[in-house]
Amino acid sequence: MTIMISLGADTIVPITPVWVVGTYDHEGKPNVMTAAWGGVCCSKPPCVYVSLRKATYTYGNLMERKAFTISFPSEAYVKEADYFGLVSGRDTDKFSATKLTPMKSDLVDAPYVKEFPMVLECKIIKVIEIGLHTAFIGEILDVKAQQNVLDENGKPDVGKVQPLICSLANMSYRRVGEQVGLAFSVGKEVSARKT
Amino acid sequence: MTIMISLGADTIVPITPVWVVGTYDHEGKPNVMTAAWGGVCCSKPPCVYVSLRKATYTYGNLMERKAFTISFPSEAYVKEADYFGLVSGRDTDKFSATKLTPMKSDLVDAPYVKEFPMVLECKIIKVIEIGLHTAFIGEILDVKAQQNVLDENGKPDVGKVQPLICSLANMSYRRVGEQVGLAFSVGKEVSARKT
Repeated sequence: MTIMISLGADTIVPITPVWVVGTYDHEGKPNVMTAAWGGVCCSKPPCVYVSLRKATYTYGNLMERKAFTISFPSEAYVKEADYFGLVSGRDTDKFSATKLTPMKSDLVDAPYVKEFPMVLECKIIKVIEIGLHTAFIGEILDVKAQQNVLDENGKPDVGKVQPLICSLANMSYRRVGEQVGLAFSVGKEVSARKT
Repeated sequence: MTIMISLGADTIVPITPVWVVGTYDHEGKPNVMTAAWGGVCCSKPPCVYVSLRKATYTYGNLMERKAFTISFPSEAYVKEADYFGLVSGRDTDKFSATKLTPMKSDLVDAPYVKEFPMVLECKIIKVIEIGLHTAFIGEILDVKAQQNVLDENGKPDVGKVQPLICSLANMSYRRVGEQVGLAFSVGKEVSARKT
């Protein structure tokens, strides 16, 4: 028999994404921070959100510039991605510390990480105060990917992008594993079973 | 030289979670739908969001009951999880079709999937109209996990939970792969390098 254990009111989920939020500060200095709390939240207009605390340096940049980018680190940049979450842009130039390259977005007032394989460029359309965290909803104006991570359909191939994911409960960055089924497809066997 | 290709304004991200949203309808029939668009959005109060279209059966249930659960399917339930996103609760009893068991939450007016290893029980505190999708922000009242997926610290072990993740661009469900670094730890090497 399976026993369910109560773990209390907490933000424990199996896996979060690892997103690097790019902004400019009031002096135009590029900054990045790593966020585990982000996701897609609308298809029309295409939107993502990121949630962060008011205490972060990025919070002020977002309020001022009304724009951000999301750069998706590949596995090769796990140290840099973790570092971006360990120190503050208030007293650190994270690009110069990591020797990564800030690229100015053509579309929004924010920089992205040139070395990372995939990027979203977003303008903020809503700011939602929830509690300790504020959710910034950004409309995606463009998705950019390095040519060498695209598949034959011109879509980013997850096996080539090699994105990081994070299990915060285990303090563990993970790679994406093998395919276990095709979406909008494997479930059809259940429909067939039913009849 | 790396060439960046513009893919247009689209909701392409490398990886999304696979979350099963549990609700009761107006007659008390338990329903579940699979959502890729969800994430943590606040620590105090602990909150998650899920985004879905008004056209879904779950949308009406959420508006009426002001509560939901998130059940996290393990790899063994990839067919059932996909099926929950293929058909509508309007004309299908998804629990009876999959022979999975709806469990009534003690804390909120919503059911969860007994067979899945981990569950959140949430009451809706904000409803955000974005565009085609609406984001429902739910305060997490409790996290429950099967005893056999907990690690020695009493936290869910991602290797035992075996959660699904999804690459929508590749229509592919994936398992979680190997650890590539420790969070809030591997980045310290960059700080050391700097000095």
